[in-house]
Amino acid sequence: MPGFQLGSIGRKDKRESGLKIHRRGFVALVLGVAASVRLPGVARAEDAHLPSWNDGAAKQAILSFVRATTDAASPRFVPPEERIATFDQDGTLWVEHPMYTQVVYCLARVPAVAKAKPELMEVEPFKTVLSGDREAIAKLSMDDLFKILGATLTGMDVETFAHEVAAWLEKARDPRWKRPFTDLTYLPQIELLTYLRANGFKIYIVTGGGQDFVRVYSGRVYGIPREQVVGTAGGVSYEYGADGRPVLIKDPKLLLNDNNAGKPEGIHLMIGRRPRLAFGNSTGDRQMLEYTTAGDGARLSLIVLHDDAEREYAYGPAHGLPDTKVGTFTQALYDEARADGWIVVSMKNDWKRIFAFET
Amino acid sequence: MPGFQLGSIGRKDKRESGLKIHRRGFVALVLGVAASVRLPGVARAEDAHLPSWNDGAAKQAILSFVRATTDAASPRFVPPEERIATFDQDGTLWVEHPMYTQVVYCLARVPAVAKAKPELMEVEPFKTVLSGDREAIAKLSMDDLFKILGATLTGMDVETFAHEVAAWLEKARDPRWKRPFTDLTYLPQIELLTYLRANGFKIYIVTGGGQDFVRVYSGRVYGIPREQVVGTAGGVSYEYGADGRPVLIKDPKLLLNDNNAGKPEGIHLMIGRRPRLAFGNSTGDRQMLEYTTAGDGARLSLIVLHDDAEREYAYGPAHGLPDTKVGTFTQALYDEARADGWIVVSMKNDWKRIFAFET
Repeated sequence: MPGFQLGSIGRKDKRESGLKIHRRGFVALVLGVAASVRLPGVARAEDAHLPSWNDGAAKQAILSFVRATTDAASPRFVPPEERIATFDQDGTLWVEHPMYTQVVYCLARVPAVAKAKPELMEVEPFKTVLSGDREAIAKLSMDDLFKILGATLTGMDVETFAHEVAAWLEKARDPRWKRPFTDLTYLPQIELLTYLRANGFKIYIVTGGGQDFVRVYSGRVYGIPREQVVGTAGGVSYEYGADGRPVLIKDPKLLLNDNNAGKPEGIHLMIGRRPRLAFGNSTGDRQMLEYTTAGDGARLSLIVLHDDAEREYAYGPAHGLPDTKVGTFTQALYDEARADGWIVVSMKNDWKRIFAFET
Repeated sequence: MPGFQLGSIGRKDKRESGLKIHRRGFVALVLGVAASVRLPGVARAEDAHLPSWNDGAAKQAILSFVRATTDAASPRFVPPEERIATFDQDGTLWVEHPMYTQVVYCLARVPAVAKAKPELMEVEPFKTVLSGDREAIAKLSMDDLFKILGATLTGMDVETFAHEVAAWLEKARDPRWKRPFTDLTYLPQIELLTYLRANGFKIYIVTGGGQDFVRVYSGRVYGIPREQVVGTAGGVSYEYGADGRPVLIKDPKLLLNDNNAGKPEGIHLMIGRRPRLAFGNSTGDRQMLEYTTAGDGARLSLIVLHDDAEREYAYGPAHGLPDTKVGTFTQALYDEARADGWIVVSMKNDWKRIFAFET
């Protein structure tokens, strides 16, 4: 297919001239100005890759990293089997505000659980959840939340659980956009996953969310197969059902709390390789990002700053934004990002579009 | 490459005529006799795939399973993303007798550990191991063994551990064949891995051995990447080294005992899909084999019977062979295999060659 080859060579030339921008001041200035003059009808190579990203330091850092790690002549080349990229999910790949989707699921499951176990109807925190009083529900403590997670995420076999989650995702709607939660993925990130995959990166979700939960839709929504989802994981017990067939029952026992230090620990357990690229958005991702950049050779850590109150949400104490229960982006995290060379991605400035459904 | 295409078509025709053998008695008889007449210089398709397997029920079951699961027109077709195959390691992919290679490693590490912690020199079971008294070492209890595993497999960072294992594998030699342990893989199984991989199966090792241990050589020896090794796994702790860089320290805490029921539990944790094909050799693989065949659609479970005292070893109470500390193949397991339709692979009868180094 000569047309394809020609296209590839064209892109390669573009990449090489792009590299010079970083190396030589004068050439950079001239080429930089030239690059900003857009010929109508001529799509630039960068746009072809990440069209929903605005030109800027973040996009350039990604393109430059992928060019270097996939160019066998580059000192920063990474062999294909070592090209591991890890992405946090909530707040990094899709909306986490004002409540993690999985928590919405657990709350929605409470009536069915209470129907099966009526004794829960008079017990807190289930009584509050069943009352439907939103203000009271919003005030539930972490301990209450864990009781709800335990009751709604364990005790059934893994296949029943997956069916229940899939059925709920079909009909549940986000209150702000009135769309399925799985529509609320960030288009620039979906493009980035596609771009990395096309360059031989194996992509993992590394989420504080439940591993079994995210695996239900990771293939359909992100193109990431179930086995490339690392998440908070409980144990399962091998038992024999009434028909004598073996089943795996979800246990309340926590095997991996895939948050904070649990992220690099989970990466070691499930992948066994240090990532070359990691992307997060909160203090829960700090250790994963540190661990990534501390490795030898080419590494890139990135972090989403939610600073777009209009198109999505603005939160996190860095930049004086309000703190919340989810996705905390502290000033200390911002300072570490700067000191460690992580790329801070501003939702407001770096992303041209946020969602695929926007026109 | 027309030559390659021609070859593929030729193989496909061969497969289709092979399928008829199973469907029609008379045609089967005629074709069966014809198939057994070997023309000199003409390699048959089956030989091209699994040359070190003798013709017989086991080889035919494998070829038939792969044909059906990869033929989109077959009712037993399996989409590529669901083609998961899981292999036990010790006794299934390589020699486990008279002692698991990892146990040999742990015993060999004791002097270095005792040098670093001299207080161990006067403490059992380290004292016995250091004495070099083979008879006394062979009599150590399981509790003693766990103490040795704990002392030799934990306490260091994961990268140091991997370097130590790699260095040991370079110089250690099996006492019977005087070769590196990694030479003692079964050639018919290496051919099977290659054949499955060529047919779109994603292959995992699911071993009772240490996950971090097997990952050191799985890529080089089996072509199975580190992230496709599920094994007995301890926790790791995220800490900061003297230079401030993060390290993962191997903990004595057991996260997954990947034996017996732990095998399907570990498969769910690390893969999240039920295997389509599973291969084991002992009671430790029973639940993995059960779990595999209990799934819907095409499934195949296989089990190696070590009945070749001359070329390898003969052990296990099934068929009246002696029981041992490793790889127990009981009469009950044999009966379950027969009742459940698992394929019992006789090392003596089904494997033409055992090792690649044999002439």
